[in-house]
Amino acid sequence: MSSERQPHKWISEPFTPHLRTLYAVKEIVKSIRTKYQKVEIVNTYLYGKCLFLDDKIQSSELDEFIYHESLTHPPMFTHPHPRSVLIVGGGEGATLREVLKHNLVDKVDMVDIDEELVKICEEYLPDFSKGAFNDPRVLLKFEDARKFLEKNRGRYDCIIIDLPEPLKGGPCYLLYTKEFYSLVYSNLADDGTVSVQSGTTHLNLTDLIASVSKTLSLIFPIVRVYQSFISSFQQPWGFCIGSKKVDPLNLSPPEIEHKIEERNVGKLKFYSGRCHQGLFSLPVYLKEALKKGRVIEDKQPLYWEI
Amino acid sequence: MSSERQPHKWISEPFTPHLRTLYAVKEIVKSIRTKYQKVEIVNTYLYGKCLFLDDKIQSSELDEFIYHESLTHPPMFTHPHPRSVLIVGGGEGATLREVLKHNLVDKVDMVDIDEELVKICEEYLPDFSKGAFNDPRVLLKFEDARKFLEKNRGRYDCIIIDLPEPLKGGPCYLLYTKEFYSLVYSNLADDGTVSVQSGTTHLNLTDLIASVSKTLSLIFPIVRVYQSFISSFQQPWGFCIGSKKVDPLNLSPPEIEHKIEERNVGKLKFYSGRCHQGLFSLPVYLKEALKKGRVIEDKQPLYWEI
Amino acid sequence: MSSERQPHKWISEPFTPHLRTLYAVKEIVKSIRTKYQKVEIVNTYLYGKCLFLDDKIQSSELDEFIYHESLTHPPMFTHPHPRSVLIVGGGEGATLREVLKHNLVDKVDMVDIDEELVKICEEYLPDFSKGAFNDPRVLLKFEDARKFLEKNRGRYDCIIIDLPEPLKGGPCYLLYTKEFYSLVYSNLADDGTVSVQSGTTHLNLTDLIASVSKTLSLIFPIVRVYQSFISSFQQPWGFCIGSKKVDPLNLSPPEIEHKIEERNVGKLKFYSGRCHQGLFSLPVYLKEALKKGRVIEDKQPLYWEI
Amino acid sequence: MSSERQPHKWISEPFTPHLRTLYAVKEIVKSIRTKYQKVEIVNTYLYGKCLFLDDKIQSSELDEFIYHESLTHPPMFTHPHPRSVLIVGGGEGATLREVLKHNLVDKVDMVDIDEELVKICEEYLPDFSKGAFNDPRVLLKFEDARKFLEKNRGRYDCIIIDLPEPLKGGPCYLLYTKEFYSLVYSNLADDGTVSVQSGTTHLNLTDLIASVSKTLSLIFPIVRVYQSFISSFQQPWGFCIGSKKVDPLNLSPPEIEHKIEERNVGKLKFYSGRCHQGLFSLPVYLKEALKKGRVIEDKQPLYWEI
Repeated sequence: MSSERQPHKWISEPFTPHLRTLYAVKEIVKSIRTKYQKVEIVNTYLYGKCLFLDDKIQSSELDEFIYHESLTHPPMFTHPHPRSVLIVGGGEGATLREVLKHNLVDKVDMVDIDEELVKICEEYLPDFSKGAFNDPRVLLKFEDARKFLEKNRGRYDCIIIDLPEPLKGGPCYLLYTKEFYSLVYSNLADDGTVSVQSGTTHLNLTDLIASVSKTLSLIFPIVRVYQSFISSFQQPWGFCIGSKKVDPLNLSPPEIEHKIEERNVGKLKFYSGRCHQGLFSLPVYLKEALKKGRVIEDKQPLYWEI
Repeated sequence: MSSERQPHKWISEPFTPHLRTLYAVKEIVKSIRTKYQKVEIVNTYLYGKCLFLDDKIQSSELDEFIYHESLTHPPMFTHPHPRSVLIVGGGEGATLREVLKHNLVDKVDMVDIDEELVKICEEYLPDFSKGAFNDPRVLLKFEDARKFLEKNRGRYDCIIIDLPEPLKGGPCYLLYTKEFYSLVYSNLADDGTVSVQSGTTHLNLTDLIASVSKTLSLIFPIVRVYQSFISSFQQPWGFCIGSKKVDPLNLSPPEIEHKIEERNVGKLKFYSGRCHQGLFSLPVYLKEALKKGRVIEDKQPLYWEI
Repeated sequence: MSSERQPHKWISEPFTPHLRTLYAVKEIVKSIRTKYQKVEIVNTYLYGKCLFLDDKIQSSELDEFIYHESLTHPPMFTHPHPRSVLIVGGGEGATLREVLKHNLVDKVDMVDIDEELVKICEEYLPDFSKGAFNDPRVLLKFEDARKFLEKNRGRYDCIIIDLPEPLKGGPCYLLYTKEFYSLVYSNLADDGTVSVQSGTTHLNLTDLIASVSKTLSLIFPIVRVYQSFISSFQQPWGFCIGSKKVDPLNLSPPEIEHKIEERNVGKLKFYSGRCHQGLFSLPVYLKEALKKGRVIEDKQPLYWEI
Repeated sequence: MSSERQPHKWISEPFTPHLRTLYAVKEIVKSIRTKYQKVEIVNTYLYGKCLFLDDKIQSSELDEFIYHESLTHPPMFTHPHPRSVLIVGGGEGATLREVLKHNLVDKVDMVDIDEELVKICEEYLPDFSKGAFNDPRVLLKFEDARKFLEKNRGRYDCIIIDLPEPLKGGPCYLLYTKEFYSLVYSNLADDGTVSVQSGTTHLNLTDLIASVSKTLSLIFPIVRVYQSFISSFQQPWGFCIGSKKVDPLNLSPPEIEHKIEERNVGKLKFYSGRCHQGLFSLPVYLKEALKKGRVIEDKQPLYWEI
């Protein structure tokens, strides 16, 4: 008999068929299949409460701030004066929380197809949204982002695309195409910026980031890739920014620090002027991998088989 | 990215530090720490709902009948006419369910220290007890079995000891000692029989079964070891029977079949006359391993470190 | 950082997609793909050296005696005077070792399709064959057993079929069919007996044992199923015996003990007269499961997908 | 039976008791216990050949260049004209390979306590050292680095400390103390720089990096922390640089690019001027975590329990 008391409940996330991460589980807080996806909130020992969608970790209590600050602040600070913002996806409400920290913002639309997911996150992960859903500046819409953008009239200063990975048959793989990014472009005002969660930058798995970046480049005059390390994902993670005018590489650390104060953003836990610089300072191999992307189109989408 | 959808929630049970069984989990139905132990009810894909106490599997929906019929019917049929029965432990209520199938039985006392566990099993594993807790012949007591037996006045025909393994600091390791078995003996009537869940009979791990059997032999004139295969335990499992008069080896298959009818036991899924014979027909290596047990005493108990 | 030194190399054997066994590994002694199958010899902590074929455990140093005695001695003792024996498969040489213990035996043919496997076992698992390959009574043939039996002239007293499970595309699934068992029958002398390794008897996975038994019943007047528990397989395991004349159920324990002496078999570690009785004393659920088998034919074989 | 062919050999690395990484294994190339440590070279599917010391991954074929370029080039480029270099540890020979790319270097001493390890790496991981051990500028010493530095007479321009983590009872925990870093300091010439592998920068596990950085600060006028993402470690990784004169933060990207050319370093796969800037651009939480380190002293060392 074993004389050692080991954790005995585990979540296994296969990163590839040849690499698995096992998270020791305290409790499965919620497990449900919504109309669109499998949603699980799992309390783990190392990362606290984690959200899994279709068996893929999306964010954790311990380090969601790294992911959400990485996704939100680069396009928000690149834009000179973001007033209206659109969030695509972002069910946890943490991207929304970060956007609202910029005191210039007077209007945020958030479009997530999965109402049930948003309700679950609000109930079970209240520290992720920290009340953001009740902010009077916010309008929540539960519909397909693509349909929303097709009929939308106004234009946004920033659009933040906070989606899970494109899974075959999943709810969002058609939100990773040239056609979708064209819609995004036409819904952005003149100085508009967009950021896109773009998957891992693991050496062997750069298809998605390289192709998102290539596809965006067909639409936006300025496209930059940056990466961050989200510990609960066990891997470095990539993001793309598309911009109509301002190049995020031209923002100096002091300039960003100044804006953080000016917009009364408050204390951030991850992002800073120096950190911004670090995000965009890519290693050689990643720069080379980025050259190999292909254009993603509706008729030839990129997705992972489930 | 993985292109395969694998089960991703698992319970890992270390059988030894060098062998683990992983059960794919559908849902953790209940997870709680009672006053006495950690209780989990986990719905697994292969075995259905399983009860884990202190991280050790106790029984599964799929094959609990093997365990509970193995533990109950040998002592019940060895006794010529069991009327009053005591169950020690047996929180799931399935041992109780099996005992009550013998129509001679007019009184069953069940003593389990953990009231909360019994309530949870009744609520979440109703198919285990199948209403047995409401049978008018049954008296439930929530107290330490040892204290109960010390003050008990009546005598039982059969006592069935259905306890988890002896864990250091756990609720039951002092119910595996010579002193306890003496109490059991003195609480049994003249033809009395007792059965004891006695742990795995895995080749390398026969300490417990050998020592329980040796210890019982100091008290009971007839002691027999038998084994059964409980699939959800992944290993062969051992039981001891102590008897004041009748030797279970002397019951022929037809005799047992006759009693099954006579007592109107109904259809069993595991036990039969032939099966009884099989249970007691031990392989050579196990017979030899049984010689190596030691006497378990209060002052020198046998337990696994937690 | 972990402060505990755990075993860190593991073999994972998926029993089903929902149950995995993890064996802690000391060393991978040999890993090779022969012409027919993937062969691995792995030194594990709990079971010592184990043979895996196509990722399935076949036998372990610790308890191979249980498997090989279970497969060999029932048909050998059921036969009144086995002189010539055929082993189909049995690459480890341990079935051969057991057969040769019967001093009546003067000729053993062993037909295994995979010469490389046999050589590897002889070199890396010498304690399994214990020199049996060099016994002058033994003739080794490396060819397809079916072709061998089609052209073979002599007749055997016993045939022992020691094959891995039928895997699609694997080397042996056509050695589990009615047509093959007919060949076996016609290669057996008048009192002939055959035993067949028939897979797990796990409650949910009785297809193979039930179908082998049903298929044999079309050919042999007497067919009996028996089961044993091979700890390193983590599950109860099933075997079939087909017999032309003697029913293995009619052998009493003393009769078998007498034959063990008479044939100078020496000390066995698992099998005995009582054990024989136990092997054939099946529980109720297994008897019922056996009714559900189907006839396995060349044109409708039974195999597991790889 | 499982119908899926999954990888079935795995290396499990517990990062903490609550997080495990499983690497699917093709082959265990070498497994040996040297005089100082357990050495394993394992061919994995995702990362190719990996070196494990005492069950901890040290480097992988796929991404060792990230680790070794991160450790080597910052101190080498921070130093204005490194001619003589000392490597402490670095058994794989890959740090040596990187150092030798700087054409200014005319002398490298490498001191690793474990001769057997170095020989194994040279034989089984030849692509890691790429012949560096045979470079005439190199002198290999197999002894304790501390003893070596105590008696050494010359002074180095750069010292690169490439050691496994400090494990209790392991070969190197006394090479992480103030006393050792004092020795390092006194063995460095006037512009001297040192880099130190300093463990993960995972949010919850910053003890080591914070304490190494604090300890170095007692000795060196300039100490900077930087981090990199080594994918095969599944986590962000930290390094410290100590410098007598030049601050690595003052090197601009073009300046570094110029030096890369000037020193004829050739094509790097990870490091560049921009990358250097990124390495030192730490996120807010890490800067704060660094404040919490303690001084590591011989009499109060920092190590992980094994």
